Amino acid sequence: MGPMAIDDENAPDRDGSAEVVRDLRTALDGRWREVRDRARELIDSPDLLPDPSRTLDQARADVLVTMRRLAESGFADAGFAADHGGSGDIGGSVAGIEILGYADLSLMVKSGVQWGLFGGAVENLGTARHHDRYVRSIIDLELLGCFAMTETGHGSNVQELETTATYDPATGEFVIDSPTPSARKDYIGGAAQHARMAAVFAQLITGGPDEEPHGRGVHCFLVPIRDENGDDLPGVTTGDCGYKGGLAAVDNGRILFDQVRIPAENLLNRYGDVAADGTYSSPIENQNKRFFTMLGTLIRGRVSVAATAGAAGRKALTLATRYGLVRRQFDGPDGGGEIRILDYLGHQRKLLPLIATSYAVTFAQNELTAELHEVQALLADGDDDEELAVRQRELEADVAGLKAYATWHASRAVNVSREACGGAGYLDENQLPIIRGDIDVFTTFEGDNTVLTQLVAKELLAAYAGDVQGLDAAGWVRFVASMARDVVVEKTAARQVIQTLLDSSDEDLEDSSLTDRSTQVRLLRAREDHLVRTCAQRMRRASDEDEDAFEVFNAAQDHLLKVGHAHTERIVLEAFVEAIADCPSAPAAELLGHVCDLFVYAALEQDLSWFLMHRHVSVERAKAVRRGVNELCAQLRPHAADLVDAFGIPESLLAAPMLEHA
Amino acid sequence: MGPMAIDDENAPDRDGSAEVVRDLRTALDGRWREVRDRARELIDSPDLLPDPSRTLDQARADVLVTMRRLAESGFADAGFAADHGGSGDIGGSVAGIEILGYADLSLMVKSGVQWGLFGGAVENLGTARHHDRYVRSIIDLELLGCFAMTETGHGSNVQELETTATYDPATGEFVIDSPTPSARKDYIGGAAQHARMAAVFAQLITGGPDEEPHGRGVHCFLVPIRDENGDDLPGVTTGDCGYKGGLAAVDNGRILFDQVRIPAENLLNRYGDVAADGTYSSPIENQNKRFFTMLGTLIRGRVSVAATAGAAGRKALTLATRYGLVRRQFDGPDGGGEIRILDYLGHQRKLLPLIATSYAVTFAQNELTAELHEVQALLADGDDDEELAVRQRELEADVAGLKAYATWHASRAVNVSREACGGAGYLDENQLPIIRGDIDVFTTFEGDNTVLTQLVAKELLAAYAGDVQGLDAAGWVRFVASMARDVVVEKTAARQVIQTLLDSSDEDLEDSSLTDRSTQVRLLRAREDHLVRTCAQRMRRASDEDEDAFEVFNAAQDHLLKVGHAHTERIVLEAFVEAIADCPSAPAAELLGHVCDLFVYAALEQDLSWFLMHRHVSVERAKAVRRGVNELCAQLRPHAADLVDAFGIPESLLAAPMLEHA
Repeated sequence: MGPMAIDDENAPDRDGSAEVVRDLRTALDGRWREVRDRARELIDSPDLLPDPSRTLDQARADVLVTMRRLAESGFADAGFAADHGGSGDIGGSVAGIEILGYADLSLMVKSGVQWGLFGGAVENLGTARHHDRYVRSIIDLELLGCFAMTETGHGSNVQELETTATYDPATGEFVIDSPTPSARKDYIGGAAQHARMAAVFAQLITGGPDEEPHGRGVHCFLVPIRDENGDDLPGVTTGDCGYKGGLAAVDNGRILFDQVRIPAENLLNRYGDVAADGTYSSPIENQNKRFFTMLGTLIRGRVSVAATAGAAGRKALTLATRYGLVRRQFDGPDGGGEIRILDYLGHQRKLLPLIATSYAVTFAQNELTAELHEVQALLADGDDDEELAVRQRELEADVAGLKAYATWHASRAVNVSREACGGAGYLDENQLPIIRGDIDVFTTFEGDNTVLTQLVAKELLAAYAGDVQGLDAAGWVRFVASMARDVVVEKTAARQVIQTLLDSSDEDLEDSSLTDRSTQVRLLRAREDHLVRTCAQRMRRASDEDEDAFEVFNAAQDHLLKVGHAHTERIVLEAFVEAIADCPSAPAAELLGHVCDLFVYAALEQDLSWFLMHRHVSVERAKAVRRGVNELCAQLRPHAADLVDAFGIPESLLAAPMLEHA
Repeated sequence: MGPMAIDDENAPDRDGSAEVVRDLRTALDGRWREVRDRARELIDSPDLLPDPSRTLDQARADVLVTMRRLAESGFADAGFAADHGGSGDIGGSVAGIEILGYADLSLMVKSGVQWGLFGGAVENLGTARHHDRYVRSIIDLELLGCFAMTETGHGSNVQELETTATYDPATGEFVIDSPTPSARKDYIGGAAQHARMAAVFAQLITGGPDEEPHGRGVHCFLVPIRDENGDDLPGVTTGDCGYKGGLAAVDNGRILFDQVRIPAENLLNRYGDVAADGTYSSPIENQNKRFFTMLGTLIRGRVSVAATAGAAGRKALTLATRYGLVRRQFDGPDGGGEIRILDYLGHQRKLLPLIATSYAVTFAQNELTAELHEVQALLADGDDDEELAVRQRELEADVAGLKAYATWHASRAVNVSREACGGAGYLDENQLPIIRGDIDVFTTFEGDNTVLTQLVAKELLAAYAGDVQGLDAAGWVRFVASMARDVVVEKTAARQVIQTLLDSSDEDLEDSSLTDRSTQVRLLRAREDHLVRTCAQRMRRASDEDEDAFEVFNAAQDHLLKVGHAHTERIVLEAFVEAIADCPSAPAAELLGHVCDLFVYAALEQDLSWFLMHRHVSVERAKAVRRGVNELCAQLRPHAADLVDAFGIPESLLAAPMLEHA
């Protein structure tokens, strides 16, 4: 135990523990804490935990039953505008769905598909005729839908989808078709069994009275796929993706369309419409911009996935921490019996930095959820000024970055937690293997993490320029190379707390203490700036030397991915700093400060070679980072139980025999 | 593509490719290549792939049927001495069982339990009366057994098992008992359903005519647990561990003993015996030494698990590499259509260093398998000189280290491969999620990886001293502190190839080229020596300053784990160097050289901060490492298909729809 120890490990019933847990939880739950508490009550039953002995059909049916119960409680109202039949609380809808992850990630995903993706497409891409007709029945589960974007041939590159929707002016219908095997809709949640209707993304082809039909880019159409008995409608062929790595209760499937005709009004026409004679119109002239605007309205799904991954990581870490506190192995000093495994430094080093990162990610998640809530409210009010547009682009980039950061973190946390529980961690009865199987695909769906991390970098380097979205790699390089020489990343979202912190620190970065919050923020800012600047230089040099633009892009891909990671980690830290400043409880804020230190030290340790190579950190400081992680682990060890209790996971959902007889 | 490129990526049918693949495969298959080829033939059928739609009972039964077919072919003979009824080819038994992992890891584990662990206990801990009676029926599967070592309360610390075996001189029987709930045998493969007999590890309690009964340490007993109908025998209560993270066809279970009586001859009495009057005798007087000698005879299980993890990693990487070669996404330069995803640097960086590490691990595995084969042959011949004893201790430490290194590598390779295949990688039809679920526990069973890595360091620091095994942490620290000041790691196993390499390099390490093989070996040796020396200093300083020995141990645990890792990585590299020297084909050896470079560069990059902090690598060299990984990826990209083809996985076992319609 280092000199900084703030508590005695032999005093588990220490004074004030319950209050600290409560105050930490208040901080973690953030602005939508009441929504979270209501959701916790709704799912507070071990019956909701996934049962691995069920068949796929049983699992799917059970989760649908739970969804109906949620719907009856009004759970799904928040995601839809009040004048469409919902209650209009976007942030609340994300917070609520996140909590479902404490019970069963399949429940979250299936709910997310119905209310977030399918419902969100109708809500955000549709107009009054769709809202009036569908929103209530989507909320009530009278209409079960799916979100048919991904195709066998195209997941990341959605702009190149092959499904076509050709307008036929003779009948006033759209003809939906899968022209090739790779145009098959694939991995679609709900498509295997339960969905009756699909929100189908397809290349719209239409002309007008004086124009040949031609491609207008990807649009979304509501296509009925099954009749009341669940049989495929004419021209529709659905298939079942079958067994997967997890998410047993989500009925992922495939859809092929063979010239399926749907009425004209089934085009979700907010951003593009087709008149009876086939004339195309859109409030957004540029096809690229239109496409990315449409995609942008759907980022709630991405925010929800990141949030839920956070919940899964916290649950796994809670189980592993509790096991580490009851499990003993190998004799300790002086005949005191066997050692609790969480008292080993090696074990602390596995779990505590991950817990600290979970805190950091939770605060960042809360911040982005609030920003999503605000931006979407302004958009709903009809605002469309340039400032809001930039704010929206930044939000989209940050959501992409955090989705990747949070889901990779969650995967790591779950994997490490499983291994930290040894053989017990491998038994489904202790939940960890199920979480491990379920969480795996979170790094893939709602945007592949590598693609998303790269997207962050591309946006940063292009300074959120309007024309850059949709450019291919070479085009993007040429754009960046053509930009003014001295573009630096503007951190427009810099909050007052951060600004004050930075203004107050005039010390040389190298001399200032590593536990100083401003030093920490300045280090992560300096890394980001350095990476962005040098990456931009590479792009420009390429143009000077007239190299092949794609080769330049590709040779710098690891650099780009590092930019994206560095940016996201910086905003995560700043959200943590903000959350500490907002915490009214002094003991909780003090503890959060140490947790934040551990997050920073662990993040620095993870990337220490970069900091050393680029001389942002001296060898002496680097050694202090490594020692510091150890010291902070010792310091936080007595608070481990409190730190995970503060996640507020219903006890009924933490059932695990290993915690009883360890 | 860097200047070093050795091939044109647009020439997949390049000359000599088939020969290179053949020669690489010969190198990888090593000394037991014929055994491997026979095993490949035995499992060359897609029917052997795990079918996720089966119930647990069906899966278990199916695998048992396959095992019977293997047994009929003589597959299991190799693991048993010729005069016990086998064919006495230890190395071959490991090579054979490893290949089963290409089909189904459950098949490998269930086979390993029966023939390796249960059979191995009888073979190695028993004497003629056991060999005569049991070996043939174990080989033939007439007797199905399990290996009941782990208990609910003790997995890593086997010396503290609670199950008791008390000798009753009145009846000449042992009484097997589980005195506490935590004494329950747990996670035991075969115990849930198929095993009729258990090799039970229990604390032997016996006295003698003039002596009170007292503990003699852990011994192994053959205990019948089920009758012919599969019902528990009197006093035995078995249970089923049920659903797990993977390995569906392995019937892991639990066993509780309530005063179960077994005849005296069921003690496996090679290292300890009890006379009719209860007198205890053993060829090894020291109880600790006896225990670790007994454990030492069982390391074949650990070698097999490491080998099979290697196979699983290679299979996952083969699937992901092939997918990367057919899957295209996002437009490339100049309207050339979409890019193969393996042509992206980011994707190459995911897969190619893992492929290189798989080569390295395979060569190290082959080397340790051969050493195991030699050592066990000498032991079987009755050799017991001091040199052999040290050789055996080194082997045990290296096996521990490689088991951890290989299984962590395999886990990472499988996880990355899954993610690299996106949504397709999450469907069981493409195999990756099943491998991912199965491989997970390999880091835990046959020794928790963290405990094993630490064991390597403890052995190195204590210079394989005979008395150190079984000491608790504090005792070990005191031992190391008491050792002569200047103990350095002797690398007794240094092969001629390595020695020649080192002798030929008189250049200063800092100035010599990083692609120079001797530079690479010297760098990894320097890291290991540095870590061992400084760790020993910490232990000694502790004794000087009279600190609490356990605290000293615990504060240095991350240092210890780093020692273990560095040692193992060094022997892995040296095995790679040896394998290149042994490769008679010049083109294959040249390609292996580049693969070895990538392995080294990736390993250096992984630990770059350490090399920088301890000034073993300059900033300039560190930057060259990072660049070098990129260049080597570009260089090996055209050979990616060949590199995985050389693993020689039967095509029938690589069935994956994603490879057809990607």
